[in-house]
Amino acid sequence: MSLYLSKGTIELQSAPSIKSFAAAVGKKEGEGPLKNSFDYIADDITLGGKSFEKSEGLLQQNALRLALKKGELSESDISFSFAGDLLNQCTGSSYGLREFSFPYIGIYGACSNMAETLALAALFIDNGIGTNAVAITSSHFCAAERQYRFPLNYGGVRTATSQWTVTGAGCAIVAAHDKPPYVKSLTFGSITDMGVKDANNMGAAMAGAAYETISAHLANTGQSIDSFDYIITGDLGEVGSKLLYDLFNRDNIPIKEKHKDCGTMIYDLNQQNVNSGGSGCGCSASVLCGYILQELAQGKMKNVLFTATGALLSPTMTHQGETIPCIAHAVQLTDN
Amino acid sequence: MSLYLSKGTIELQSAPSIKSFAAAVGKKEGEGPLKNSFDYIADDITLGGKSFEKSEGLLQQNALRLALKKGELSESDISFSFAGDLLNQCTGSSYGLREFSFPYIGIYGACSNMAETLALAALFIDNGIGTNAVAITSSHFCAAERQYRFPLNYGGVRTATSQWTVTGAGCAIVAAHDKPPYVKSLTFGSITDMGVKDANNMGAAMAGAAYETISAHLANTGQSIDSFDYIITGDLGEVGSKLLYDLFNRDNIPIKEKHKDCGTMIYDLNQQNVNSGGSGCGCSASVLCGYILQELAQGKMKNVLFTATGALLSPTMTHQGETIPCIAHAVQLTDN
Repeated sequence: MSLYLSKGTIELQSAPSIKSFAAAVGKKEGEGPLKNSFDYIADDITLGGKSFEKSEGLLQQNALRLALKKGELSESDISFSFAGDLLNQCTGSSYGLREFSFPYIGIYGACSNMAETLALAALFIDNGIGTNAVAITSSHFCAAERQYRFPLNYGGVRTATSQWTVTGAGCAIVAAHDKPPYVKSLTFGSITDMGVKDANNMGAAMAGAAYETISAHLANTGQSIDSFDYIITGDLGEVGSKLLYDLFNRDNIPIKEKHKDCGTMIYDLNQQNVNSGGSGCGCSASVLCGYILQELAQGKMKNVLFTATGALLSPTMTHQGETIPCIAHAVQLTDN
Repeated sequence: MSLYLSKGTIELQSAPSIKSFAAAVGKKEGEGPLKNSFDYIADDITLGGKSFEKSEGLLQQNALRLALKKGELSESDISFSFAGDLLNQCTGSSYGLREFSFPYIGIYGACSNMAETLALAALFIDNGIGTNAVAITSSHFCAAERQYRFPLNYGGVRTATSQWTVTGAGCAIVAAHDKPPYVKSLTFGSITDMGVKDANNMGAAMAGAAYETISAHLANTGQSIDSFDYIITGDLGEVGSKLLYDLFNRDNIPIKEKHKDCGTMIYDLNQQNVNSGGSGCGCSASVLCGYILQELAQGKMKNVLFTATGALLSPTMTHQGETIPCIAHAVQLTDN
């Protein structure tokens, strides 16, 4: 059963287990520092799909099938799925998962999707609603670039603050309390708008949302950053991470000592030409369902606040001169 | 507390109340048969917004503010909000609600949004997670047409099977069991693809999803259609409704006797030039949060299965020759 603490924050009293998890990524991600943590690395960017959108669906299928296999589960064991992605109408998820017959609950939180799906899946299980709940999301560099910025063929120069959309998918399957990692508590964030209009500076847009949600989670659960091994943000990149430190410095909280960012972990920023780091739903999804959950399962990490951030960016709205609203959701993961 | 029954279906044992609800619509909808049930009817299609996308956000704000007022609630009384819409990146919701500080959980189920948001809000309240949960969605004719089909200025002839996207928003606020209407049970549907490729025939695409979800809800709760005053679909229109009858006829279930469709209720199909009927998230949202919930609150309806259907239509995917995956979610509403 869940205990509502305060604004947005919920304690999961049964501490559901993440029974199985898998990450599927593209070639570039498979050449980065976390290459040994991924379950599947594609040979080429298409995965055999006839369009980049279909390739993204195939990434989700790969992550889901691997997570089912690792958990010794079949499709019929799944009670609910929570899915979403960055493509218009979330087609990476709807076309990727349409051949599976389990109930589908579509969500949209941009790059906060991995935390949002995991939070909802864990809440269902914590309250005895179903047996196994899937949380899944993805992004694809080529599909995202042409939708949000320019077609790749245009060959535009990327700005220093820009981030590289990760080609990747992550899938976590939540079940009743058994083995670690466990979902202990979570905070759903509110919309935060820092006034950023630049679609090539997502980190700056999202830093405020990360600050608000992490601060709320700490306050509402009565914890300080000392309780955690790491506070891991989704995809702030180098630029957004520095802004996050500035925001917490105003509160005299030295978050830098505890902070990691999936966007700077997944690539070698000196060698892989990704400017400020990785981004996209698939960034935090593949780092969570690859590296982080493995570390927790093995007891190498003991207490982590996973905070995925989403820029609710729309080209239509930025072309109309609007700023970018952002959101962050946080999930506290432990090994006991 | 919630009781998981079977695939997708959940009984809400506390039977949460829909404490307050409001519907805001455009001028055309305000001239239709349900005009007396709406809380707000816009004078013109823009509502004063500088773009149609911003107008849609204003619709949501109107519906939310009216629902808060009718429930004697303030913004700070809201524990969680569930929101989504048809615009790319769900900007009707994110830009519409960004000035509100309550937690925001974004969803995407296309025109099934009203059922999906209401189901999730009711589940949170049924399990004691928060005090008041907002379920809200919207659509706007002009914004939807240019995104999904053609800009209005193009002046294309509308096909006989086409539907008219409703300019409207609906907001329901769920709280602990008190006065009717109550949320008794619900079914989350699975993705269903009937093989339809025509973006001007949404009703046909969605009929299969409605059939699957209604059938599952009846089977999993052990009810027949005789238990209900009405089984109300979201926006199948005339074409989709006939297909729904055909599908149920194969099971010897005369659903036509109990069936209503928000898409054929909201307009006068003989007078208002909408071809097969209304569609869009705002269709079922404004009919639910206007007419249906009023009837339940007054005891004129006693037991209704509200089944909103969504075509997970993407112009990108249909241009790639893909068929349209669909989804339907059902919420059972009662007066006692």
